Amino acid sequence: MAILEPASYVAGDWIAPGAAARDVFGPVDGARIARVGGAPDTGRMLSHAIDRGGPALRAMTFHDRARMLKALAGYIDSRKEELYALNPLTGATRRDGSVDIEGGIITMTVIAGKGRREMPDGHVYLDGAVERISRSGSFLAQHIAVPRRGVAVHINAFNFPVWGMLEKLAPTLLAGMPAIVKPATQTCFLTEACFRMIVESELLPEGAVQLICGPTGDLLDRLGPQDVVSFTGSADTALTLRGNRTLLAQSVRFMAEADSLNATILGPDVTPGSTEFDHFVKQVVTEMTVKAGQKCTAIRRILVPDTQLDAVTDAVADRLRDLTIGDPSGDARMGALASAEQRADVLGKAARIGCEAVNVLDGLTAPDGPGFVAPMLFRCDDPSGDAVHDTEAFGPVATVMPYANVTQAAALANRGRGSLVASLVTADPDIARAITLETAAWHGRLHITDATCVKEATGHGAPLPHLVHGGPGRAGGGEELGGVRGVLHYMQRTAVQGSPDTLTAITGQWMPGAGQVKGSAHPFQRTFDEIAIGGTILTEGREVTLEDIEHFANFTGDTFYAHMDDAAAKANPFFPGRVAHGYLLLSFAAGLFVQPDPGPVLANTGLNALSFQKPVSPGDRVHVRLTAKRKTRRTDSYGEVAWNVTLYNQDNDQVAEYELLTMVSYTR
Amino acid sequence: MAILEPASYVAGDWIAPGAAARDVFGPVDGARIARVGGAPDTGRMLSHAIDRGGPALRAMTFHDRARMLKALAGYIDSRKEELYALNPLTGATRRDGSVDIEGGIITMTVIAGKGRREMPDGHVYLDGAVERISRSGSFLAQHIAVPRRGVAVHINAFNFPVWGMLEKLAPTLLAGMPAIVKPATQTCFLTEACFRMIVESELLPEGAVQLICGPTGDLLDRLGPQDVVSFTGSADTALTLRGNRTLLAQSVRFMAEADSLNATILGPDVTPGSTEFDHFVKQVVTEMTVKAGQKCTAIRRILVPDTQLDAVTDAVADRLRDLTIGDPSGDARMGALASAEQRADVLGKAARIGCEAVNVLDGLTAPDGPGFVAPMLFRCDDPSGDAVHDTEAFGPVATVMPYANVTQAAALANRGRGSLVASLVTADPDIARAITLETAAWHGRLHITDATCVKEATGHGAPLPHLVHGGPGRAGGGEELGGVRGVLHYMQRTAVQGSPDTLTAITGQWMPGAGQVKGSAHPFQRTFDEIAIGGTILTEGREVTLEDIEHFANFTGDTFYAHMDDAAAKANPFFPGRVAHGYLLLSFAAGLFVQPDPGPVLANTGLNALSFQKPVSPGDRVHVRLTAKRKTRRTDSYGEVAWNVTLYNQDNDQVAEYELLTMVSYTR
Repeated sequence: MAILEPASYVAGDWIAPGAAARDVFGPVDGARIARVGGAPDTGRMLSHAIDRGGPALRAMTFHDRARMLKALAGYIDSRKEELYALNPLTGATRRDGSVDIEGGIITMTVIAGKGRREMPDGHVYLDGAVERISRSGSFLAQHIAVPRRGVAVHINAFNFPVWGMLEKLAPTLLAGMPAIVKPATQTCFLTEACFRMIVESELLPEGAVQLICGPTGDLLDRLGPQDVVSFTGSADTALTLRGNRTLLAQSVRFMAEADSLNATILGPDVTPGSTEFDHFVKQVVTEMTVKAGQKCTAIRRILVPDTQLDAVTDAVADRLRDLTIGDPSGDARMGALASAEQRADVLGKAARIGCEAVNVLDGLTAPDGPGFVAPMLFRCDDPSGDAVHDTEAFGPVATVMPYANVTQAAALANRGRGSLVASLVTADPDIARAITLETAAWHGRLHITDATCVKEATGHGAPLPHLVHGGPGRAGGGEELGGVRGVLHYMQRTAVQGSPDTLTAITGQWMPGAGQVKGSAHPFQRTFDEIAIGGTILTEGREVTLEDIEHFANFTGDTFYAHMDDAAAKANPFFPGRVAHGYLLLSFAAGLFVQPDPGPVLANTGLNALSFQKPVSPGDRVHVRLTAKRKTRRTDSYGEVAWNVTLYNQDNDQVAEYELLTMVSYTR
Repeated sequence: MAILEPASYVAGDWIAPGAAARDVFGPVDGARIARVGGAPDTGRMLSHAIDRGGPALRAMTFHDRARMLKALAGYIDSRKEELYALNPLTGATRRDGSVDIEGGIITMTVIAGKGRREMPDGHVYLDGAVERISRSGSFLAQHIAVPRRGVAVHINAFNFPVWGMLEKLAPTLLAGMPAIVKPATQTCFLTEACFRMIVESELLPEGAVQLICGPTGDLLDRLGPQDVVSFTGSADTALTLRGNRTLLAQSVRFMAEADSLNATILGPDVTPGSTEFDHFVKQVVTEMTVKAGQKCTAIRRILVPDTQLDAVTDAVADRLRDLTIGDPSGDARMGALASAEQRADVLGKAARIGCEAVNVLDGLTAPDGPGFVAPMLFRCDDPSGDAVHDTEAFGPVATVMPYANVTQAAALANRGRGSLVASLVTADPDIARAITLETAAWHGRLHITDATCVKEATGHGAPLPHLVHGGPGRAGGGEELGGVRGVLHYMQRTAVQGSPDTLTAITGQWMPGAGQVKGSAHPFQRTFDEIAIGGTILTEGREVTLEDIEHFANFTGDTFYAHMDDAAAKANPFFPGRVAHGYLLLSFAAGLFVQPDPGPVLANTGLNALSFQKPVSPGDRVHVRLTAKRKTRRTDSYGEVAWNVTLYNQDNDQVAEYELLTMVSYTR
């Protein structure tokens, strides 16, 4: 096979490895597989990102960028076999590769979908609700988020060359920030192959993404307050980067996701023979062996009731003994570590764990080859030492240890001093609650399973794009993904204060008190594009009679005493006497504002945040204000229009308010 | 006056200044006013906080802690004149003091109110909505937040000795974390007086708060992954703290709020004689002179259209010339800087600004006394230099500079390299939008005013408890306050995955798919405490006839064609033909689940997130599931119960779902 020469992508140019390039050797047979390195022109890269990529991305809306990401994920998916072809060179089996390759594609797809559903089709993201900071409402506040104006530097780990890039790129690009991707040298050839697809897709604007294969040079020393560094890798490297003087002095946003000593706990209620027990054993074996244990979320510590120590150790050991280890391009269940260096590191760490625990699989052998190791299952009868809680052997290595009670189980889980994930198998929700309250502060994610959900459980080790990934302390103190939460790391949150009209102009969403646009045509007869934000109608009034209330009660069956019995209603702290049903008011409101003829408004799909603010008594007269609040394109033919609907009585007191959701056609 | 001896409060003991205490001299007459210092036993403080304060606070619910804070704010308010009596020793006038003292009390009150309204009456905060991560719903995820298990170290600035302490304590204690407060030495006697009130109130549990007057010793070097450091002060000190090896190595959460060169912009549309112009001038003068300009949010840079440079400079200068400066305990409008050292610093910085700009108030004099300075208004005709954008004279000092157009105005505002706040005065919402989009990424808050809101505007320099306070880059890259956002800084966010029953037990909120508790009594006949989370009734079915639909249409006036005209309805992409009104379904649902007799359920106050999921055609038969989802005590006599209401058709397909809000009495 020809030697791979992964290139850097600098300001639109592919830069091949230079004379100073470093050789990379494969983990299966030790052959030289790639040459990596060069001296990137970091000044040129930053200018290109900030002058070209940033403005081009910011000119797009969140939905534009979400569509771009969806298309990009589809494009990579269509060419993924090219990535699988390179995957065994990293030591990974096809199963391992699917976590990396499909995992990356799915993550980008989910983030794109979240962008479409949960972010506006505009340039300003609204964070939380409007804050009414003045008595009469002439001065309001709204938190917004806008893209940071610098560049996102992504420093990725060797173990997930594809997922690692895509899971960081998706939220960054959705936010509207350009990125410079720096993969780990050992496996950067696979990242580069995927990155090349991104460039070849021609789906991204110029300057949106750049790549450095090899050292980053002085890149970090050139960063400023609008930049973001997102790092995945070892705790030691995280510490070095975090201490960079420029990052500290410029308040560069820095996020780290570091390996950690993730624990799994077998609940005290679970015994051999149960579905939960079998699931626990299977999950431990999976987490120890996928990617040959080179996962930042892998299980390193197995906490079991002292009464189950033998049973669990035996069951896990038996399964591990049956594991086939070998050439990752073949049928082996477990492949190799990524390099000879990784193997040496794992063996060294295992020796340290061996001072406090015994490897029950001692003697098990692995194939020849620089990256192969046999799985190691340590048993530690006394888990009071430090080594088993703070030594992370980044391979197929874990330690089983006993606990006496739930309190001790939680305390042992927390001795990892911060981890990405902990898991618990229990069928008892009270145990789940007790352990969660004691451990949640130490773990970024808790994965809890019982027999009712094992079929659909996503697995201890799988970070999901919907959920935050990161953890306190040893896990780096950072956070990424988590849907829109992960996008906001690449944006600046700003509290904007102003008059209702000003905030409406800035956010593109009608704010309470803003001027209302009145027109001749009924809003239900306007197309999506014709409906102006702030467009308003004020309806006629309608009296609500006692007959209406009684009629409605008898028709619907809702004869609640507050509507039917004056004396009983008066005894209720909320009502002055008999009052109209809330749903009668909603129904009358619709009767007042609906335009009955076929037109662009297609359907009422729901409503939000309805509050009944003042009782309506028989003889009161209600009228309605309907104002177009927010518009979001949804399909090729129609979009969602949200309306503010406010009901008033004859004294112009508000009696109810809600947000009405409708679908409105783009055409008549 | 006797020399003040502010003490530290260590593990429940008051520790007076020791032999190594430092003298503090007053800014008005230079007299010695206090002795400060000692060697705190930091190990004892941390143990006390973590072993006593943390567990005691975590045993309380969010509402318990919110009530505690409300009572505490009221207690301090009742004794605030004792604080005003000490206030002039800091150089501050009574007006300045009210920003500090009332400001702190109000901030604590607002945060307490947010805790009651926006957080649950339990131990687990739910962050965002449930994530449906499995196809059939047997496995769900919910982000939660729980209190961090360490201690919050608050390092406060000298300029707001009361507000600075209270604005950090309120979110910390609401989160459930104990705190160690370290005020700046120069004004710590005032902080200590307020802190002493907190102790004397006996409202907080033992260990919840401790105080260090004087140096912190090795406190920072002892912190760990569950601790938080929140710093307010200079950018230089922020950099020193942030670079602390322990903080870096242990991923200690660190937040900084640093002084910055906040800008105000006069919109190009505003001309002399307008309400906006006068408001702009007045606001500049206020922000320059309150606290003698010693505010991290004060206006340092005044950006005006080049055509208005003379007019603005003259108007501001005229007002500043009229300012009375003098003894802060008297009638003077402006008092003194906090110390002779601050005065020396301000004069040095002003000299640097003087290299690029001219002080139009040169020659104005201030009273004798170590802390007094006259206001300085610099005019810089060419704002391309660096000094005017990066030299912060922390006193009554600002620079007026011209801009040619909106783009340049935004670019100049951003040259502060990150600030806490920028303000803009414009009557044109389009200008507001353009400047916001260009500047928001550089500023933590934007304050925009026009004639419609000047009366209620809260002011450029006022951080509000509702809004985030902090900013990127030079402003420290941190964030505090912002309602619940500020509370979450003292908590750990964790993604919890599990079965619906497990998540219900952990969160105290019914999750879709969780087991339903069925009982004999109708839920409307149960008191608040008797209603079990998950308590469910399944109603009878009711057919929806064509007659019902026509009757409802005629009764309410909602004759929308989808209900009335089969052919037209069929042409609509959402409907198979004529369908029932959504509000008819809601009304029938209420008729099916309501129990009409007087009982603990008092009123339906609203509903949330109603979605119509499937059309209901004439002849369909609907039934309803009503499940108790969430309970929150609201007053002494009743609380809010939120119910999940789901409507099904005869095929058990969901046709609508919403969250129903009711108020339920504690008694029968």
